[in-house]
Amino acid sequence: MANLYKEKIKQTYSILKEKDIDMWLTFVKESSITHDPIMDMFLPDNVTWQSAFIFSKDGTSCQIVGSIEEAKFKAFDLFDETIGYIQSVKEPLIEYIKKKDPSKIAINYSVNNTLADGLTHGMFLTLESYLNEMGFKGKLISSEEIVSALKGRKSTAEIEIMVKAVEETLKIYDKVTGYIKPGLSELDIAAYIKGLVKENGWGLAWEEEHCPAVFTGPDAQGAHSDPTGKKVEKGHVINIDFGINYKGYCSDIQRTWYVLKDGETIAPPEVQRGFDVIVESIQRAADFIKPGVLGCEVDDVSRNYIVENGYVEYPHGLGHQVGTQAHDGGCGLFPRWERYGNLPFIPLEENQVFTIEPRLPIESYGVATIEEEVLVTKTGCKFLSKPQKELIYIKS
Amino acid sequence: MANLYKEKIKQTYSILKEKDIDMWLTFVKESSITHDPIMDMFLPDNVTWQSAFIFSKDGTSCQIVGSIEEAKFKAFDLFDETIGYIQSVKEPLIEYIKKKDPSKIAINYSVNNTLADGLTHGMFLTLESYLNEMGFKGKLISSEEIVSALKGRKSTAEIEIMVKAVEETLKIYDKVTGYIKPGLSELDIAAYIKGLVKENGWGLAWEEEHCPAVFTGPDAQGAHSDPTGKKVEKGHVINIDFGINYKGYCSDIQRTWYVLKDGETIAPPEVQRGFDVIVESIQRAADFIKPGVLGCEVDDVSRNYIVENGYVEYPHGLGHQVGTQAHDGGCGLFPRWERYGNLPFIPLEENQVFTIEPRLPIESYGVATIEEEVLVTKTGCKFLSKPQKELIYIKS
Repeated sequence: MANLYKEKIKQTYSILKEKDIDMWLTFVKESSITHDPIMDMFLPDNVTWQSAFIFSKDGTSCQIVGSIEEAKFKAFDLFDETIGYIQSVKEPLIEYIKKKDPSKIAINYSVNNTLADGLTHGMFLTLESYLNEMGFKGKLISSEEIVSALKGRKSTAEIEIMVKAVEETLKIYDKVTGYIKPGLSELDIAAYIKGLVKENGWGLAWEEEHCPAVFTGPDAQGAHSDPTGKKVEKGHVINIDFGINYKGYCSDIQRTWYVLKDGETIAPPEVQRGFDVIVESIQRAADFIKPGVLGCEVDDVSRNYIVENGYVEYPHGLGHQVGTQAHDGGCGLFPRWERYGNLPFIPLEENQVFTIEPRLPIESYGVATIEEEVLVTKTGCKFLSKPQKELIYIKS
Repeated sequence: MANLYKEKIKQTYSILKEKDIDMWLTFVKESSITHDPIMDMFLPDNVTWQSAFIFSKDGTSCQIVGSIEEAKFKAFDLFDETIGYIQSVKEPLIEYIKKKDPSKIAINYSVNNTLADGLTHGMFLTLESYLNEMGFKGKLISSEEIVSALKGRKSTAEIEIMVKAVEETLKIYDKVTGYIKPGLSELDIAAYIKGLVKENGWGLAWEEEHCPAVFTGPDAQGAHSDPTGKKVEKGHVINIDFGINYKGYCSDIQRTWYVLKDGETIAPPEVQRGFDVIVESIQRAADFIKPGVLGCEVDDVSRNYIVENGYVEYPHGLGHQVGTQAHDGGCGLFPRWERYGNLPFIPLEENQVFTIEPRLPIESYGVATIEEEVLVTKTGCKFLSKPQKELIYIKS
């Protein structure tokens, strides 16, 4: 990981230059309790007391931490300067900023991007009071542009890890296909998958209560619900949403199965049709993606196709970025809904990784949903996951 | 846990009455990424989209969540009302608040108390803009008083679990005494302890990198540093800082050992004296604690005793609260240092649990530090941990 931190720190300086921001200040405390997710980009550990992590456009960095943690943070060898304090972070922080005299300071909050919004409001008030004293009142800006670029633009090393994470996830899905049979519950299937993950020493991409999320048959609760005791039956459409945490990076993939009834050799036409609409809606979105297009335009492509085919629109965005978090980056393939803030309206960039995950209900059978991961390239995008093009059959 | 949630929710209503606060609103999103620690008091899961959890003085509650998560949160059966939304939390939130028409709303931020400061600044700006529209501009207050009471005042059920957590931690320390010997590294000892915790199916009280923290001999880095390859030698003072997470509640205990040199049957006088000063400073603090005293007054007692005996003062607070977090509650036994905000100046209350953990360096030998847990009672306090009164000897 140490090399990844150094790579991201190097990238930070070039982003500060590109965006013409003099200083980026991340202000945190008790970060094991309220954790600022951006810390994971440049630090391997949490802080206890108020601490400041500062990068400047001139290519220098400084960390100011409680004296007891000074030796530890210095030893990580990631920041040029380490300052320890005993009673208050205020004086060393003010002194350092004065010395640098930035005309703008980006701080760790954002109305739009969760990953750039780790500063708590109480900590904001504290920081603001320090900086007001120095006449910095109007100079504070959100760090969301920095964070979106830093988290979004994956380096070669990051992409390599993410490709491997997807690969291993698909291998697990292959094993799951051999395991599923009528009579097993959603919980049984989830436990089987968790066992495979554990065997390999990986982590889960999100909370274990619903990673994997397993849905079998009609009236499934929809995404973000925990697997239940509900059992797989013949005639069920099964969907699984799952990802691993591999070397600090997440995968996030969904697959859809159909359990053949006695005498069936293929799925009923309405199941096949729903599945095909999902496949095609993903392909159309992928064909549309390239640097410069807006996430909401990509969402339109899938959403409209699904609605045109007579299905209800999915009650969420088409896709999000993936990285050290399952929900990563910033801008996403989101509809123009208030809950997504400005995130649907930011142009896509090269080397971002997105999921594409539309869904539709197939009445009396279950939910069809596939989730693929794509990497934005110079001229378009490419699938990181071999896309599911065929319904996977479970024969009982 | 479900009963604990219900117990804490019941307690919430009585605190709202006591403090005369009409409404307490916790506003969160993507809480697996930026987690508001207060959610753990009344909820078993995280949210994805903007969500509001509202308790009113009239004894009613409401949760407003993304529609996909509605069924899941309803099924927890903890809130009276559940509202799901698709495009924006704004309308249902405003409508609910209008209906209740509170004269004050406590929201989840605090300058002083990390556990009451889960609202990010970006989310604050969003919430503020919603509420300003309704003319609520001056009516927002910090929820720190509610959170401090709710987290601090442990119920009988909580205390039972915490007593057990301490008991099990002390049993592990007994085993560690039999394990330590010269030649083992700090990392070996940490691995041994982690093995015991895992065997029992418990969690660690804080990040596994430094839980346990193990320090052997002189020039140890001090608290909050990770165990290293440094090996135990004869003549070392050894200190371990460690706690488990038992049924959702943490313990946090430190013990001190001395490794006898060849021919020694007791520790050198300077080691014994340092140890005795720590023991006595803890006892004096415990004798002083009762409801109504201030944390900084308790810190004074230990700090002054140590300094009067010619040792350097410890570079941190004397103790903090413990609960679902290792650093819990709010007010603490803290010195009057800016970094602790108002937390040293809040009167102690019955049923709070505090650590007492002074430290002092014994030159050429190591660090003497003991950490006990005490429960504030009606008239004083009682030790939850059988206090360490004697230096534990390692014979090689």
